[in-house]
Amino acid sequence: MFYIGIDLGGTHIAAGVTDSAGRILARDSTPTRAERPYQAVIADMAACALSALDQSGHSLEEVAALGVGIPGIADNETGTVIFCTNLGWHDVPLRQQLQRHLPLSVWIDNDATLAGYAESVAGISKGLRSSVFLTLGTGVGGGIVIDGKPWAGAHGVGSEIGHATLLADGEPCTCGKRGCVERYCSATALIRMAAEVCTMHPSCAMMQQAGGDMGRINGRLVIDLAKAGDPLATQVFLQYAHYLALTVNSIISFLDPDMIVLGGGISNAGEFLTRAVEKELPDILMFKTQPHAKVALASLGNDAGIIGAALIGKLTLK
Amino acid sequence: MFYIGIDLGGTHIAAGVTDSAGRILARDSTPTRAERPYQAVIADMAACALSALDQSGHSLEEVAALGVGIPGIADNETGTVIFCTNLGWHDVPLRQQLQRHLPLSVWIDNDATLAGYAESVAGISKGLRSSVFLTLGTGVGGGIVIDGKPWAGAHGVGSEIGHATLLADGEPCTCGKRGCVERYCSATALIRMAAEVCTMHPSCAMMQQAGGDMGRINGRLVIDLAKAGDPLATQVFLQYAHYLALTVNSIISFLDPDMIVLGGGISNAGEFLTRAVEKELPDILMFKTQPHAKVALASLGNDAGIIGAALIGKLTLK
Repeated sequence: MFYIGIDLGGTHIAAGVTDSAGRILARDSTPTRAERPYQAVIADMAACALSALDQSGHSLEEVAALGVGIPGIADNETGTVIFCTNLGWHDVPLRQQLQRHLPLSVWIDNDATLAGYAESVAGISKGLRSSVFLTLGTGVGGGIVIDGKPWAGAHGVGSEIGHATLLADGEPCTCGKRGCVERYCSATALIRMAAEVCTMHPSCAMMQQAGGDMGRINGRLVIDLAKAGDPLATQVFLQYAHYLALTVNSIISFLDPDMIVLGGGISNAGEFLTRAVEKELPDILMFKTQPHAKVALASLGNDAGIIGAALIGKLTLK
Repeated sequence: MFYIGIDLGGTHIAAGVTDSAGRILARDSTPTRAERPYQAVIADMAACALSALDQSGHSLEEVAALGVGIPGIADNETGTVIFCTNLGWHDVPLRQQLQRHLPLSVWIDNDATLAGYAESVAGISKGLRSSVFLTLGTGVGGGIVIDGKPWAGAHGVGSEIGHATLLADGEPCTCGKRGCVERYCSATALIRMAAEVCTMHPSCAMMQQAGGDMGRINGRLVIDLAKAGDPLATQVFLQYAHYLALTVNSIISFLDPDMIVLGGGISNAGEFLTRAVEKELPDILMFKTQPHAKVALASLGNDAGIIGAALIGKLTLK
């Protein structure tokens, strides 16, 4: 049997057909245009899935299930999207609407949770009993895998590691409280820290690279300059790596998984990032000489969303 | 069959015999006198267990397993205590030594992990699929239960929620880093916050109650005065409750358990404490209108250590 995975993002819908090992056989994508009524977005999700299926050469009868990863939280009992802030969705009957177009069993979960699950089935954490996935992008998402299964919690609001507190009463967060992990470990946070340094050093290399326009500073610019040895970019990067190392320590203190997997835009820094984090850990871990979770880079890239969504259908049918 | 649980503490060893539901049938205790060689301490653990067994009226042949809760971490493959800081133990062959006195299968785990497990089998979180237990004492210990089983992690160093970071680079901690949960949510932290206020207000009610001796301020004194409406004690207590609410939010953001159980000395404040925490949660939870973990008081008190240790033997034999 085959599986369809749909990754519903704020700007794009991506759909793919996979085999039971999570290998993508065919795919398609289309703009989300989230300003439309949800019925129109969901019709496009179905069309995108059918287009990928056509390309795969398989038929609907060969598809066992369809999974959807959403940037929000869902209730799989009812098949409803509870919240999807950046789509403006609230209590959207996603399963029922999708099934008007596609006669398949439909499962829905958080996109970061599914990406982490994908890595644990077909990616860097393949076969490990437990892992925690962090997406380091505009925000910070989390995906927890325990006993080989995604853990979304008792009320579907778990794995939101970006909104655990890292610095009590610190930087204000979009969620309404202060000092969340997301405010120190996202790409947005790295850019904020760089801007703070650039304000004090307006002729620094980061500002030069940005053509004197602070609004053009991005994560890659800071990281590339840090890799090249620029002192102020290095200072910003090490401050970021410090907060990320503290978050890695908190993950170990909570869950002590086999592996912590870093994904999202900032993870493109590669081993430059993981080495900086690993270097801090001996100073901050509680049990300094005990074996601990390896910090590794995600290996599935953007495919993780489709693969995780496809595999959640497979897991749920078991 | 029956089970023996031993709670190894820094000052006392407590042992008990339970039935398969975790009911304590008989118990005994003896001072730890941790300054002695570990062999002598372990001999006393065995003697204490045998004394409880005698009192229970049962024989060794009726005992299926023996569990030990330790204030540290253990390796159940080898039966070794890896670290037990406040006993000064490091790589102590606890199973092998205990079996010189008692021909039983022996299982070892962290005391807070076992107390949380006990609550989930025989206490306030009985029967729930997932729960997180926090001991609010001299330090802050944690016990995570997932799918009805204690979760100690992939390397035995999980559930140490007291050493997750709550305020990056904040108060120095005994573990070597700064800003751990333990530095803001332990009884020690409540006393430190009270002392800071008393330094500024040397004739406040807290100081009067302590006979002018800041060293006599303890958690109960602060909480009793806060309950009585004293403004400065209330200020200290609400600051403590704020940090505890942030920690509760972090637990929900990570794991979203069915229940968060508060134990340890500070939990004797009862609903005065849980109400103060619950009152803060709507402001800080990410999904403000979603159902979330109930914050409840532990119900087994000091017995949780013995019960959890006894039950871990039962679980492991399954």
